[in-house]
Amino acid sequence: MAKLSAAILGPTGMAGQQFMPFLAEHPYFELKILAASERSAGKSYKDAAKWYQEKPIPSNLADMPVVSMEEALKKAEVDIVFSALPSKVAEGWEPKFAEKGMTVFSDAGCFRDEPDVPVIIPEVNYPHLKLLKIQQSKRGWQGGIVKNPNCTTVAAAMALAPLRKYGIKRVNLASMQAVSGAGYDGVPSMAILDNVIPYIEGEEEKVEYENLKILGELDESKGEVNLLPAVFSASCHRVCTINGHIEALFVEFENDVEIEDLRQSYLNFTSRPQELDLPTAPKPPVVLFDDPYRPQVKLDRNLGNGMAASVGRIRHDKDKHRIKLIALAHNTVRGAAGNLVLAAELALKDGLI
Amino acid sequence: MAKLSAAILGPTGMAGQQFMPFLAEHPYFELKILAASERSAGKSYKDAAKWYQEKPIPSNLADMPVVSMEEALKKAEVDIVFSALPSKVAEGWEPKFAEKGMTVFSDAGCFRDEPDVPVIIPEVNYPHLKLLKIQQSKRGWQGGIVKNPNCTTVAAAMALAPLRKYGIKRVNLASMQAVSGAGYDGVPSMAILDNVIPYIEGEEEKVEYENLKILGELDESKGEVNLLPAVFSASCHRVCTINGHIEALFVEFENDVEIEDLRQSYLNFTSRPQELDLPTAPKPPVVLFDDPYRPQVKLDRNLGNGMAASVGRIRHDKDKHRIKLIALAHNTVRGAAGNLVLAAELALKDGLI
Amino acid sequence: MAKLSAAILGPTGMAGQQFMPFLAEHPYFELKILAASERSAGKSYKDAAKWYQEKPIPSNLADMPVVSMEEALKKAEVDIVFSALPSKVAEGWEPKFAEKGMTVFSDAGCFRDEPDVPVIIPEVNYPHLKLLKIQQSKRGWQGGIVKNPNCTTVAAAMALAPLRKYGIKRVNLASMQAVSGAGYDGVPSMAILDNVIPYIEGEEEKVEYENLKILGELDESKGEVNLLPAVFSASCHRVCTINGHIEALFVEFENDVEIEDLRQSYLNFTSRPQELDLPTAPKPPVVLFDDPYRPQVKLDRNLGNGMAASVGRIRHDKDKHRIKLIALAHNTVRGAAGNLVLAAELALKDGLI
Amino acid sequence: MAKLSAAILGPTGMAGQQFMPFLAEHPYFELKILAASERSAGKSYKDAAKWYQEKPIPSNLADMPVVSMEEALKKAEVDIVFSALPSKVAEGWEPKFAEKGMTVFSDAGCFRDEPDVPVIIPEVNYPHLKLLKIQQSKRGWQGGIVKNPNCTTVAAAMALAPLRKYGIKRVNLASMQAVSGAGYDGVPSMAILDNVIPYIEGEEEKVEYENLKILGELDESKGEVNLLPAVFSASCHRVCTINGHIEALFVEFENDVEIEDLRQSYLNFTSRPQELDLPTAPKPPVVLFDDPYRPQVKLDRNLGNGMAASVGRIRHDKDKHRIKLIALAHNTVRGAAGNLVLAAELALKDGLI
Repeated sequence: MAKLSAAILGPTGMAGQQFMPFLAEHPYFELKILAASERSAGKSYKDAAKWYQEKPIPSNLADMPVVSMEEALKKAEVDIVFSALPSKVAEGWEPKFAEKGMTVFSDAGCFRDEPDVPVIIPEVNYPHLKLLKIQQSKRGWQGGIVKNPNCTTVAAAMALAPLRKYGIKRVNLASMQAVSGAGYDGVPSMAILDNVIPYIEGEEEKVEYENLKILGELDESKGEVNLLPAVFSASCHRVCTINGHIEALFVEFENDVEIEDLRQSYLNFTSRPQELDLPTAPKPPVVLFDDPYRPQVKLDRNLGNGMAASVGRIRHDKDKHRIKLIALAHNTVRGAAGNLVLAAELALKDGLI
Repeated sequence: MAKLSAAILGPTGMAGQQFMPFLAEHPYFELKILAASERSAGKSYKDAAKWYQEKPIPSNLADMPVVSMEEALKKAEVDIVFSALPSKVAEGWEPKFAEKGMTVFSDAGCFRDEPDVPVIIPEVNYPHLKLLKIQQSKRGWQGGIVKNPNCTTVAAAMALAPLRKYGIKRVNLASMQAVSGAGYDGVPSMAILDNVIPYIEGEEEKVEYENLKILGELDESKGEVNLLPAVFSASCHRVCTINGHIEALFVEFENDVEIEDLRQSYLNFTSRPQELDLPTAPKPPVVLFDDPYRPQVKLDRNLGNGMAASVGRIRHDKDKHRIKLIALAHNTVRGAAGNLVLAAELALKDGLI
Repeated sequence: MAKLSAAILGPTGMAGQQFMPFLAEHPYFELKILAASERSAGKSYKDAAKWYQEKPIPSNLADMPVVSMEEALKKAEVDIVFSALPSKVAEGWEPKFAEKGMTVFSDAGCFRDEPDVPVIIPEVNYPHLKLLKIQQSKRGWQGGIVKNPNCTTVAAAMALAPLRKYGIKRVNLASMQAVSGAGYDGVPSMAILDNVIPYIEGEEEKVEYENLKILGELDESKGEVNLLPAVFSASCHRVCTINGHIEALFVEFENDVEIEDLRQSYLNFTSRPQELDLPTAPKPPVVLFDDPYRPQVKLDRNLGNGMAASVGRIRHDKDKHRIKLIALAHNTVRGAAGNLVLAAELALKDGLI
Repeated sequence: MAKLSAAILGPTGMAGQQFMPFLAEHPYFELKILAASERSAGKSYKDAAKWYQEKPIPSNLADMPVVSMEEALKKAEVDIVFSALPSKVAEGWEPKFAEKGMTVFSDAGCFRDEPDVPVIIPEVNYPHLKLLKIQQSKRGWQGGIVKNPNCTTVAAAMALAPLRKYGIKRVNLASMQAVSGAGYDGVPSMAILDNVIPYIEGEEEKVEYENLKILGELDESKGEVNLLPAVFSASCHRVCTINGHIEALFVEFENDVEIEDLRQSYLNFTSRPQELDLPTAPKPPVVLFDDPYRPQVKLDRNLGNGMAASVGRIRHDKDKHRIKLIALAHNTVRGAAGNLVLAAELALKDGLI
């Protein structure tokens, strides 16, 4: 199979550079273009990027030239585009790439609430990728746009996916989020050492909407997703961890559930990325812990190379149609670049790009 | 007024030493006895204690002798006793002091679930102190036992107290607790740096029961407290902060509420300790924040010298009979020694000791 | 005594706001003017400042109006000025205030290396304040400029001051500096959690020069300070603490020293601020610890309300003319506003302003 | 080549479990025996160990049985032994294994100062392994004992090894050490959050002696190591990092040095483990940084899979025969199990076991 050619938009910042290890030697994708603002254009990648990762820049990518956004668009010579642009910037650029025939897998917040734009977690809602076709017919694009959810959405949606069949009625979620979720300069050390910050602007609204959309069902006739008919309520907090968002969930179901049934639902949970044996797919996608002290942020965020979510402490909550549990996912891997690379792998294998 | 004489049981550990600054120059109480295990008996306080506080040992107490528990009991020459004994040890000793006529204000976990033992947060449930009389008649004691709640209970109970009148029906609570809650050696740095631990053994049960008891009403005829007829569900987590337990609460009421009414309820909230102008009573007892970034652990745990709780982010939760809010209290001050000293001040002024 | 009137230049940032508690009810100084950039001018202080301190804005200052720098200069109606301006901004403004007759006590880095500008730690080099007179004759100013040292200089200079008499020949210093030294936004949490950063731009040069200047002697005939004739070498590092710079010093003397003599030198060390019983002077100025585990950043940075330095672990270093020791000072109190307020108190009492 | 059979003594604690990943699929060694105290004997490894690592127990070792020390010694059926016993326990057991013909590669502190016991960092002093033969003739053992240095010694010794040729005369070292160096429970979070602890009992003496021994030369005729004829002075401090000891070094040489020559010495530094291409040998053994902000603990401790040391900020220190530099090594990999596995690889290849 010939590899698809790929570009990264905004590869120099903290979000963008997360794509580099995934694409350095990817079996399906060949990284051809790095496009950034004028400030970086013309430099080699290693000179343009302030590299924040513990592992060094993949050696085969360190000297790649960075081009301007204009040039990348004009060339239009890649098949797919990974975007780590800031949301405001992405709003302008991403549709242009989509129009020119490229499929944009984007980490930027914009467009997530458009009915024909899928917000994808491959194991949870891979059928939503069919919205790409609807975008094309509706918008006259040759390509399309696929969105990553907010990094806080991911742990919850992956933890809830195996439980959809029990009839989720209401979810209360309290998050304890790592500082990397705000970007490298987002949280001053003076702000978070020995502290918890009880508010993250805009976060709760995103988590609430996106979970209902991701857990909802695609209505192909309407060309949009029917939100999950449940109530989702989040309280989002920043704690002093580097990576990994952990969440306490209180879940109410339509009917009574048995803990053992829920356990089995997790143990048996697998999805299309695992069936297709996609390169970035974790097995299992959701790790179940019976030890009440797990999952822990530091010990478990890297499960499945950071691509697996994990859940634990599943217990009844005073009656049998309510439970409590803990969910964890790595916010800058599964909650960012890794999830989009997996989505691209799936879209390719399922013939959607 | 002559001062009451006081003893501290277990003054050398981290919980016990918190009493020292409160009692160094207290207008009502004079510290007469420091009683500890045989290991410490015979030493001066400054030699017996491994002092962990940022402020030094009050100079007038540094050279006080530490006596054995046996000796302290035999002398029985104080009016009140503050106990910071480990729960297992307290079980044996506290009733003996109560029997001999002393009122024991205790931080130890034991006896909290006995129907005639009050678990006190003075501003929330001061009428429960009347159980002291019931203890005396039921148990034949001259004195009695008053219990401090678990440190995690405090923020929630103080945040909920002003809202009782709206008919609390259900509370989901997710805590983010400081390491000091586990004692000085309780949480290794290897365990909590860059981490969240999603489980604290026994904590959720305590928080759930104690909140319902503290928020409940004393039935004097039965000689016990009727638990608040609500459902209380907690998920308790350890985060990397030194002091201050912060909690996200999801509260369901019997009826619709207006946020402005709740705000006014906080702003107007005062209680008997404030009316009596007790030395340790914070004014106000619960600080309300409108800034969504507050309360923050580091910035607000010391409000009212660590005796005030604080609340913020009061907002409707999808419908008008549900709200979300954030609550904070200093776990080793209001959640420990400070709360008991305030309880003793109140008991004295109300003629219960 | 009538109070001197005072202004703060740059009171809204993290450095500037440190002056507020010192000046809220100062017995010698009355805060009359808060001057800041156009962005803040016209607002009340509480609206202009992003307040970062754990204690709230002093209530009597919260509503003070902030005026522009131009207006403050034009009015020229105060006796002394405390400056927390950024160094580049201070370069332009401070001489203008000095020219108009005000004495500027400045935290900004500029001018520290000018021969007639004193860099003051009152207990260490109060005679250098006489340079104010030399500034006036040399520069034709009515007022003058007094500089605070870099926050890392302070612990070392205070620790070395009592040892000058033994003939300091060489000092190697390794610092472990708190994040607050870089300002509120200076160190992202991503940069310092679980990390040490082995470089702070420009810091070592400042520490080396300033120590030799502060520990040097004023030559009144030359109108400048003779640097201490010693070699001073620093290696400066950022660690994950909030406040308090701690330093390991290796000191070589001209002659052999006895540890007990050094101990006595610390125990007996006092200086003019203590003799004059100045309001902000700590007693003692340098706390000596014999416990090898002290001083510790968290436990000891607040000694003397943050104004006392502390030293410990004084031990010979392989031979008798070399020693090692640990020094600590609070970088945002003694290393910033507090030190300047003390300097102003001293200058007033010694008739230099 | 048939693999050598290996045992681990004390594999369940934090130090011991570090050996497991190295030995799970080692090309030279086959792990046959896990020996621990009676408390663990009879259990499977996964039940006996409290596993602290981010990666799970190697799956092929999880079910290995743990035997008692007595049984392991009686069987005596392995070729080499890795010991992570506590020092007091190791004192009794290690000689017994050596006597019975096994070569013990030990992380325990005991015996490091015996003249015929090598303290090994393979790249620095591999010739010292010849002391194994001297042990055998002197002590009548069939096997022998090889010691790991203290974890703080490692960064300094590796940083100084390439500079020995310039005539090291004096070294002042200030360490900033991670909490893992004290063992899992060694540093309570209450003790180190927002803190630096300026003392680690016994550490400075170890670092000073061991560096001189490791950097010294084996005198085969005397059967012992001549210490490096230099003065080594350490000041050791605990900071709030998880893994990785970073050190500031002030080095005085016999003669003038050029920084560029030192740089080249690092760039060209290689040693016998690299020549033999040993499985655990990092290439290069010491990474040189020109970026003054490196090495950083979080970014660089894992270089060479945690086996490479790194150095940076090499600069003259006021004159040309003195320099300053920064050194870093991973204390629980290169400073513990990893270093011993490399030493065993080398001893095997060089025919010493």
